[in-house]
This record gives sequence, C-alpha cells and structure tokens, in this order.
Amino acid sequence: MKATAQIGVTGLAVMGRNLARNFARHGYTVALHNRTPARTKALVEDFGHEGAFVPAETAEEFVAALERPRRLMIMVQAGAATDAVIDEFAALLEPGDMIIDGGNAHFTDTRRREQALRGLGIHFVGVGVSGGEEGALHGPSIMPGGSVASYAALGPMFETISAKVDGEPCVTHVGTDGAGHFVKMVHNGIEYADMQLIGEAYHLLRQVGGYEPARIAEIFRQWNKGRLDSYLMEISAEVLAHTDAATGRPFVDVVADSAGQKGTGRWTVRTALELGSPVTAIAQATFARAASGQRALRAAYRELPGGTSWDLTAYEAERFACLVEHALYASKLIAYDQGWKMILDASAEYGWDIDLGAIARIWRGGCIVRAAFLDRVRAAYAADPCRVTLLTEEGFVAEIADSQVPWREVVATAARHGVPVPAFSAALSYYDTLRTERLPAALTQGQRDYFGAHTYRRTDREGRFHTLWERADRSETEVI
Amino acid sequence: MKATAQIGVTGLAVMGRNLARNFARHGYTVALHNRTPARTKALVEDFGHEGAFVPAETAEEFVAALERPRRLMIMVQAGAATDAVIDEFAALLEPGDMIIDGGNAHFTDTRRREQALRGLGIHFVGVGVSGGEEGALHGPSIMPGGSVASYAALGPMFETISAKVDGEPCVTHVGTDGAGHFVKMVHNGIEYADMQLIGEAYHLLRQVGGYEPARIAEIFRQWNKGRLDSYLMEISAEVLAHTDAATGRPFVDVVADSAGQKGTGRWTVRTALELGSPVTAIAQATFARAASGQRALRAAYRELPGGTSWDLTAYEAERFACLVEHALYASKLIAYDQGWKMILDASAEYGWDIDLGAIARIWRGGCIVRAAFLDRVRAAYAADPCRVTLLTEEGFVAEIADSQVPWREVVATAARHGVPVPAFSAALSYYDTLRTERLPAALTQGQRDYFGAHTYRRTDREGRFHTLWERADRSETEVI
Repeated sequence: MKATAQIGVTGLAVMGRNLARNFARHGYTVALHNRTPARTKALVEDFGHEGAFVPAETAEEFVAALERPRRLMIMVQAGAATDAVIDEFAALLEPGDMIIDGGNAHFTDTRRREQALRGLGIHFVGVGVSGGEEGALHGPSIMPGGSVASYAALGPMFETISAKVDGEPCVTHVGTDGAGHFVKMVHNGIEYADMQLIGEAYHLLRQVGGYEPARIAEIFRQWNKGRLDSYLMEISAEVLAHTDAATGRPFVDVVADSAGQKGTGRWTVRTALELGSPVTAIAQATFARAASGQRALRAAYRELPGGTSWDLTAYEAERFACLVEHALYASKLIAYDQGWKMILDASAEYGWDIDLGAIARIWRGGCIVRAAFLDRVRAAYAADPCRVTLLTEEGFVAEIADSQVPWREVVATAARHGVPVPAFSAALSYYDTLRTERLPAALTQGQRDYFGAHTYRRTDREGRFHTLWERADRSETEVI
Repeated sequence: MKATAQIGVTGLAVMGRNLARNFARHGYTVALHNRTPARTKALVEDFGHEGAFVPAETAEEFVAALERPRRLMIMVQAGAATDAVIDEFAALLEPGDMIIDGGNAHFTDTRRREQALRGLGIHFVGVGVSGGEEGALHGPSIMPGGSVASYAALGPMFETISAKVDGEPCVTHVGTDGAGHFVKMVHNGIEYADMQLIGEAYHLLRQVGGYEPARIAEIFRQWNKGRLDSYLMEISAEVLAHTDAATGRPFVDVVADSAGQKGTGRWTVRTALELGSPVTAIAQATFARAASGQRALRAAYRELPGGTSWDLTAYEAERFACLVEHALYASKLIAYDQGWKMILDASAEYGWDIDLGAIARIWRGGCIVRAAFLDRVRAAYAADPCRVTLLTEEGFVAEIADSQVPWREVVATAARHGVPVPAFSAALSYYDTLRTERLPAALTQGQRDYFGAHTYRRTDREGRFHTLWERADRSETEVI
C-alpha cells in the first residue's frame, strides 16, 4: 500500500467518524481503521464522496497508508481501551511518528503515556476536542498538548479543521504532555458551573419572579443579545421554550430533575483539591448534580420548614429579572476566573507555561462554553499575560462594581425565599474572600495549634510558632 | 523471652508512646518496639513506673513478647512506611494474630492491606484514633474496622483505654475492613466544616457586629453553655481570648491568616465526589483553607469593589449575635448531617452496615468534634436506625423551624455586607435543595440532551429519551 494519507483515524464511532470526515472535507487524505471493519466500510459508503479516504482492514495496512512522519489519531474509549490501542500501534511505528489521543483521557494518563512513548522516540499528543458530534464535523475547539515538534506537524491541520472566530482558528498548542487534556477537563468543569448558574437563574425567575418557562426563555433570549451571549444561554432558551408534545406541558416540567454526569466535573474538583485551587463554583455545581440524584434524601422535602416567600408585582418581577441578569453575569465571571486560576496553578506545577489568553481565544468558538465575553478575556490577558485574576481588569472591575448591589440582593433574596443557589452564593463568597484583607483562617490556625500543635506563622516576623496552651502564661515557642 | 504482653506497640513517636502508656496505665502488659531503640529506652526510663512495659530491641524479640493470638499495633507514618512495617511483621506472625494500624491511613489502603493479610490468616485492623496526643494518653475516641473476630479480641481493651461519656466507652466496631479509617476520615472532614463555620460566625460578629475578639470569646463561652456546647467552641473562645504577649494585640490578629491542612479534608471531599455524597459544607471549608493560602490571588483585595456595610447600634449588634447563634447551629446540623449521609452511602457501597447512632455515641467524647448535641443525634438514630437524614427528626425539625428566619437573615446580611460565608451559605443552599420538590436539574438534563445527546428520564413514564433538537418538530425518541 502506498503511503498517501496525511492522517489516520482509528476508532470510528461518531466522534472519530466526524473528525475523519472533517479532515477529508478539508482536502486531507485520511486513512481509516476500526476494530470491526464494518464501520470503516460504512463510513466510506456513506461519506466517501466527501473526500479522499483510505480504508484499512488491519493495523499494518493502516500504518502503511500513512505518510511519514505518521500522524495516527486514536478515537477510542478512555482508559484501558486507549492503552491497548497505543500498545498495538506503538509496535508498528518509528521514531518521529505521532500518536494523537483525541478522547477524553485524564491528563495524568496522558502524562504517563507521553513519557513512555517519548522513550521510543514517538510523539504522544493528548488533544482535548470540544464541541460534541456537530463540532467534530463542522469545527471543534481543539486543545492539543504534546511536544512542540509534534505541534509543528499537526498544528496546521488542526487549524484547518477547527472552528474559526473572526478568522482565527480555535486551536493553540496548549503546552507539553498532558496540558491539552488538562485544559479540556477544566473546560468541562467550567461548563458544569455555567450550567448550574443558568439553572439557578431560571429557578429564581420562576420561584421568585413567578415567570413560566416560556417567558423565561424570552428573558434568556433577551439576555443572550447582551454580555451573556453564549451557546449555553442560547440552548437553555431553546429547552425552556420547548413544549412536550405528549402532555402539552413545558418540556422542563416533564424531565426528571436528577442530573447525570460523566465524571469530568468530579475530575476537575479532585484535581483542584490537589492543586489547592479553590474552584468553589465548579465544586458546588458538581455536588448539585449529585444531590439531585439523592432520591431517598430528597424525599425529606415535605417535612422541612421553609423560607418566607412573597408575590412580586409585575413591575417588581421585571426589576428582579434585571437583578438576576447582573447576578448571573458576575457569578459567571467568578466561575470562569476560578477555572483560569486552576489552569495557572497547574501550569506552574507541571511547567506548561500556558498562555491563558490563548485559552480564552480558542474557547470563543466550537466548544460548549463558547461565549462573547471570552473575547474580552482574551484581550485582558493580551494586555497583561501574567495576571493572576481577571477580576482586577479595568473593564471587569467596572462591571462588577455596577453589579454589586443587584448581585448581593439576589443572593439575599434567594436566602429569604428559600431558593437554593449553591453556585451563586459560592461565587459571591469567593469574591468576598478575595476582597477580605484578614480572613478568619487566622482563627483556624489558632484552633489547629491548640488541639494538634500544628504551629502557625505570624504577621510580624518570620518563623513557625507554637503556643503552650496548656500553661497558664500561654507562652509562645519558636519551632525549629 | 516469655510471652506476657497483651499488646505490643511499634512506632513510639508521640501518638504511639501515649497509646502505649494508656494501655499500661490500665493494667495491660505492653511490649514496646521502635526502629531506633533509643525511643524505646526513653519511654521505659521516663514512664516505666506507670505500668508493665516489655521493651524489645528486635522485631523477633518484640513478637516473642506477645501473648497469642498476638495483638501488634503499628503507629508509624501512613503510606509506604506502614506497608514496610506490615511486611516486616507479617512474616513473623501466625494465623489468628492481629496487626492493628492506628495511624491515619486512607481507607482504601486499609481495605487493600486487610485483604492481603486475610489470605495469610492474619487479621488486619485499621483503627481511627481521634483526640490528638492528649486523647491518646487520657482517652481517645476509637474507630476500629477489621473483622468481627478481631473486635472480640480487641474491643474490651479499646473500651478500657477510650474516653467515656455517661459511663459508655467511646468505641464501637464500626464495620469490616476499612470502615474504621473511613469514619475517621469523615470525622476530620466534619471537623474542617465545623471550624470554618465557627470562623465565619467570628468574622460576622466582628465585621457586622463590630465586636472585638475578647468580646467574641465571651459570646462563644455563653453559646458553649447551650446547644452549641462543644470542644471546638470551647477552644475557639480560648484562642480569641488570648492576648499576644509580644505585641499586646489580640492573638488572632498576629497569626497569619493562611490555613494549613494535612489532607484528610481533601480525602473526604474526593471520596464524597466518588460516592455522589453532597458534602458541600466540608468542600467549602476545604477550599476556604486553600483560598486563604493563595497569596498572589489575595493581593487583589484592594482593587475589588465591595458590599454595603453599616454600623449597628449596641442593641442591633446584640440582636445580630443572637441571629448568628441560630445560623451557626442550623449550619452545623447540616454539616454533620452531610457527613452522616456520606457514611451511610459508603456503608451501602462497601457493605459495612454501619450503625450511625453508634458513631454519634463514640464521638461524644475523646475526639475533636465532641459536642453535647451528639447525644441527641445518638438518640435520633436509636429511635430510627434507618433514617436517611437527621433533619426530619422531630426535635431537630422544631429547632430548624425556629432558626429559619435568623439563619436566612444572617446569610442575607453577610451577602449585603460583603462578609464571605462559604460554609454558612453552602449549608443553607443544601437545606433548600432538600426542601425543593423540583430542582433545576431538569433544565441541566435538557441542556445535556441538547448538546451531547446524553438522554433524559421523564417524570410520567419509564425509559430513557432523546429529543431530536435539530428537527423543526423536536420529536422525542425512546432510547433502547
């Protein structure tokens, strides 16, 4: 077999198939392989007219079809299946070749695999791909990790097939080894937080504002024309506007209110715990999904006393909706900023040197969290690439100042009415934590020193100290 | 060497030393061993008069000194050191002997070790010990896992050396294999939440109420005479009342406000994520510690606009302090209930059949979270061992009803004043989540089905469904 394909895709379930078609539609010759050849045949039969495909039955044929250095993309299940496929193909490749994992691998697996294959001279490139089936076909947001050399060979191809915003491709070399999969994980964590925040806004508009889902869909569409313009806002309006055909009721009222999860939210929170990055809005969103599925626990709802609710006049409801827009925007800024801080912390921990502005840029299109305000995030990092938080950027400060009273009023109203707002209030508490010069963590340190002799630092001199709490004079000793 | 010792302790750092002394003071003959024999000698020299010690230089001597079946307690660092010591001694033991790990092992390690040693006929007993150095010496709360047979041989000894409340020992057979270390982990997670809640109460009394630390210490002492009576409340008052000798300032004002952590909070949250147990107050407390240590991030505090603060009159401040007591108590109930639910979820997952009332009972004394209200928790489970939540118990319902308005008022006031209350508001949002018949998780499921075809369940019939969102009629399909 002649080596004519610029790229090969093995694993032709819907994501692999659509990425392969995307490459072919852009003029690349694409080698195809699947464990069961029927899928390969079906792809060529159904979509062969879209471009140049080279179907291969065996792993050897597949590898032989690839130009050198070979670009071999695996689109199989994360975990053991990925390891098995890597082992199979690594044996057939040569130094300089590339194995590209476009699945949802955990970044620590990607780091391990990259290191192992580096020893063989093979580039292992973990790539985060966001945008679902449609994105894979029409232009995803692409987050490649791996070596600089591999990006030189792959970048132009990814740039060709990715989503474009203002003519710029939604792809960048995120960083070495697992950086791409790490950033994709945080993307999903932010997605959890954003969805939860939108859910809380909906819940408030309904419970406090007294609006029906169809009317809330209109409000969301209105918001979607402004600074909240985003894909998630858009589809939330679509879902809320939808009427269930079978019952004639609002669709959102016939869907079981138990949220599923596939694990990337949990991964994000767990990794943040290890990094010490306080992603509180993401954590609350992840636990909110878990709580929604706690059926036995939720059966308690009839027995628990509640807050004080009151009816709003039409005028008051309209005013309240305006407050919620402020609260949603401010909370969303916090949630995204927590995600960026987590990327910054990981970048330092793993030596990735990630360009945070580039992450904002490549999330503007193709992915689930795509949103108009990301262009301003990009600009904020362009002006100061070393910024630790977006919240101090001039334009965002002005907006946050403008949203202060409404944001706080919404959280206070939710508390009184008894509407759960775990993510809104986590975002506000986080903001107030950053605003606080002296936190009660000083008392925590005092407690820890009291019961466990864990020692403390002082504000006025260096060193570690322990107070002899059991002595009458409570004298202080410096701990060496 | 004649086998005269009922128990042996290897690893004679402060915890091991104090446990060994505790056993000896209660009339047991205690074999002693340490990697460096100097520590063994020092113990006998300093405390030999307290009871019957049998010092051993070598592992073989140590094992030979133990009555059969042997009870060998290891008090070394968690992790690799523990594995090394287990390997060393397992080779010297016989079927029926017991290795007891009294360190802070992760419960999954304990499960692995228990399974491995079970194959050799050796009982491996992971035991949570809480109470710090003082507790180890004078009576800790003890949480043993491991086999029922091992508890028959160890329980009476643990009951003898443990703390006592109302004549009852603070020890119970928690469950098999890793159950003891699991419950100790959750204990520590609850400890994080309780400390954070107390910190927030202090912060509110200071920032909103305008009280100085010494006055807050008095308020805490007053509260500690009522339903908030607990060890953590007591020591918080001690810490707040303390004046720094070097500066003459309140101690809490000279301690650096960056809280440390040794990892058990993180373990708890991470494990809760895996179990799907929404321990939101523990999570917020854990992240609050992480946030307090984010130095570069916290440098933003000068630039961020804030809430609206106002001065209270003396009368208003007194009234506010009373509201905070309600909020603290209600939030504390939530935090503990989240911990108990996590134990319940793990008990089902691992087949431990844990008696939740017994956990409340053994935490009444000896451990860091010891508190008067745990006796009521014990009683609540005694009346209904299968309860999923404490919040629906008659007495607690009445208290929560009584605390509704104050609790909500405090969270609302914190939001307006700009005082961070991550744990208070997480507790309230969790409570309101349980109170809510229909959560916005239905919208989440709609969004997930829209962008990822993740499917949803319906409230009115069984099955999994997907809406064809891309079609004009948005028809619904049942997914097989």
